[in-house]
Amino acid sequence: MTLSLDFTNMMAGALPHGAGITEEQLGASAARFRDVHTAVHARVADLGFLTLANNEVLLQQSLAVAEAVQGRFDDVLLLGIGGSALGPIALRTALCPPQWNALTAEQRGGRPRLHVLDNVDPATISATLARLHLARTLVLVVSKSGGTVETMAQYLIVREALAQAVGDGAAKQHLVFVTDPEVGALRRIARAEGITTVDIPSNVGGRFSVLSPVGILPAALLGIDVRALLAGAAHVTVSAGTSDLAGNLPGTFAVLQWLADRDHGRRVQVLMPYADPLRDLALWFVQLWAESLGKLRPDGQAVGPTPLPAVGATDQHSQVQLFMEGPLDKTVTFIAVRGRISEGRIPARHGDIPELGYLGGHTLGELIDIEQRATAGALAARGRFNATLAIDAIDAWHLGALMQTFALATAYAGDLYGVNAFDQPGVELGKQFAYALLGRAGSESARAEWDALPRPDPRYCL
Amino acid sequence: MTLSLDFTNMMAGALPHGAGITEEQLGASAARFRDVHTAVHARVADLGFLTLANNEVLLQQSLAVAEAVQGRFDDVLLLGIGGSALGPIALRTALCPPQWNALTAEQRGGRPRLHVLDNVDPATISATLARLHLARTLVLVVSKSGGTVETMAQYLIVREALAQAVGDGAAKQHLVFVTDPEVGALRRIARAEGITTVDIPSNVGGRFSVLSPVGILPAALLGIDVRALLAGAAHVTVSAGTSDLAGNLPGTFAVLQWLADRDHGRRVQVLMPYADPLRDLALWFVQLWAESLGKLRPDGQAVGPTPLPAVGATDQHSQVQLFMEGPLDKTVTFIAVRGRISEGRIPARHGDIPELGYLGGHTLGELIDIEQRATAGALAARGRFNATLAIDAIDAWHLGALMQTFALATAYAGDLYGVNAFDQPGVELGKQFAYALLGRAGSESARAEWDALPRPDPRYCL
Repeated sequence: MTLSLDFTNMMAGALPHGAGITEEQLGASAARFRDVHTAVHARVADLGFLTLANNEVLLQQSLAVAEAVQGRFDDVLLLGIGGSALGPIALRTALCPPQWNALTAEQRGGRPRLHVLDNVDPATISATLARLHLARTLVLVVSKSGGTVETMAQYLIVREALAQAVGDGAAKQHLVFVTDPEVGALRRIARAEGITTVDIPSNVGGRFSVLSPVGILPAALLGIDVRALLAGAAHVTVSAGTSDLAGNLPGTFAVLQWLADRDHGRRVQVLMPYADPLRDLALWFVQLWAESLGKLRPDGQAVGPTPLPAVGATDQHSQVQLFMEGPLDKTVTFIAVRGRISEGRIPARHGDIPELGYLGGHTLGELIDIEQRATAGALAARGRFNATLAIDAIDAWHLGALMQTFALATAYAGDLYGVNAFDQPGVELGKQFAYALLGRAGSESARAEWDALPRPDPRYCL
Repeated sequence: MTLSLDFTNMMAGALPHGAGITEEQLGASAARFRDVHTAVHARVADLGFLTLANNEVLLQQSLAVAEAVQGRFDDVLLLGIGGSALGPIALRTALCPPQWNALTAEQRGGRPRLHVLDNVDPATISATLARLHLARTLVLVVSKSGGTVETMAQYLIVREALAQAVGDGAAKQHLVFVTDPEVGALRRIARAEGITTVDIPSNVGGRFSVLSPVGILPAALLGIDVRALLAGAAHVTVSAGTSDLAGNLPGTFAVLQWLADRDHGRRVQVLMPYADPLRDLALWFVQLWAESLGKLRPDGQAVGPTPLPAVGATDQHSQVQLFMEGPLDKTVTFIAVRGRISEGRIPARHGDIPELGYLGGHTLGELIDIEQRATAGALAARGRFNATLAIDAIDAWHLGALMQTFALATAYAGDLYGVNAFDQPGVELGKQFAYALLGRAGSESARAEWDALPRPDPRYCL
């Protein structure tokens, strides 16, 4: 069980033409990091994600619900968006067999399918409801604030469908709310109607909530080893106890990305796992990095790197051309899974055809590993910053370790960039405009601001 | 059947603080565009994608294969990567009901499931093969060059699995190759073994091939109206016959993105459909835009915008914070589906709770439309460039129209950026390194170059 980071290809010693972070830049950052580390870890009471992995009471909430419903449901329907959806999706994709929802009950070991409605597309919701046997469906309604507009709209529709399928009283036995312990509409409804609820601690924000019941409850329902998930995260948190940059892996990741942006213009930061099961982990990371760091500093400066998801080897045939020859504005962080070298033997055939003959006797595990290393080397040879996070295997422990690595790195990077990594003020205006257009009470001033915006100019419409 | 573009929010008249493209910049580009248009359309013999929609002979190849196999197969397994996979995936997601592969045969109207193996991940391939009933599976092997390493490795594994399941002779009845008409390993094998083959015309590159049999054959197998798909594309090609920028929609899209990058530093270009079925269209666009434009100009300058995929409303809870408040380095192009306003009625309930009460009586179609317009307005109010492509409905005609719009825009943008939009020289070095590490004959010089690269530095590994 190891997680390692090789950042040789971020450094001046490895990259040609004077590209790369210098020893001096890294050294100077070590002092800065000590302050960052102190500031972040001093906020342990505010930053609930730091202690989620050790919160046995919270874990028991999810385990108790999972145990109580075991065997009663074939399908779990999760209503949630953003941080309420990306974590559960990433865990399902990484830790359940491929195409989990297309497997039979026997192939799933009696565990339910998991459907995540993370949008308000009318076609998706109606098709999902038409297909589900609601009498055998558990609905998780997940919202930290308890009032997210998309999730509330989904809830109203699904609640009515449940009532029609099983009766409104029995519908409550099909619902679990995952929300703030005190405030919000979901909490209020749960109290009034006696609906089972598990808590997202008040000091845990949506995008940092995957190790709270937001991720742990769906994972437990799917049969994922949630204790191993939390153990991987706890291991990383303990390792990151040091304020010595050279021994702090999440800190090193954060500092390198920040230096690459600030001093070298590498403002687009790619996360590229070489593994299908980690595709959705990259999307989870995108929210974490984008929504935490992309914002206005107190001095009014707009900052924040742009995270970009990719997957290897697939994207060698899509985005890698741009990474290799486009502007020198990117870093690429690979995730490599080193323990699969013997998997997927390629049979020998067509030994006389050059394009196929050399492949026989190799394995897919070897091929995908070689392609990752070849791409890393090629990028470095062309002055492109890259680093490799390596894990032994894709399992619950390593997922927990990776997720906590990125969560800690995000907290550190917030301090480095000089922004509050834990708010998202930029989404408020669009939300207010939507409330105004929907006629929600109290949105009159937003309506006035909306009405003052320029209308579509016929000269610019075609 | 309409496709429109509103780019008011790209222009100086709509954006505050002097942001936005000026009338003068746009006017000056009209003359430049006339030359670009002439140059691109003069290459009609080279640029096969311009005429794919009218190639009846090619269409009949796919239709004949689809008819010949109808009813014989429950599953189609497509082996391909990059341009051979992204188009078929985008078409399936857009034009088949959600979670197509999880539907029953009856729900699918007797049409097969479609599985796309677009990677060499050992876990994915073994899980897919373990689940499929190969005696009822058709395997499409798709590679323009006919020798793509990932696709060849997949083929060797799947061919052996087929031989074990149905015998090596009968395996040929389960295979269709989609490849260049003349050259490459697949063509050679097909000739030697009598395997059914359909053509990717020599003058059609992988990422421009979705309207060739690469996309049309899988679409026909899935029961998609391929004639409507081609008709939408043909409509756009005809409309783009004019070299007058003000009447050329793909040209306007290309010029605006190029101006936004060159004159305003908007180098990250987001495509954000507000519709679940168009999620994978954004990934198809990413390959097209990134691999065509991200490269070295003849003068050695590294150019090319970075395309970024997003989906609304979902990404309002992920990437939109960055788009609203991060650096002024982005454009956002929305795709809005205007004909769904009446779909997905939200029932009234909890009228006394502010977060839910106002939603009753609205529809999801209305909500997602309002959220798109609210986000566009909010971005504009903060000086963020954005434009909206609007379509009436998500159907084959509009998909064909959208795809041809982006393909034409890419060809124009190649000329504007001064690069060859139809090659991908940057991926060669990584490919050679991989050949060297796999021991393929003829890769000795790549091996020497690889051996000269710096090794992982222990100081930079933790």
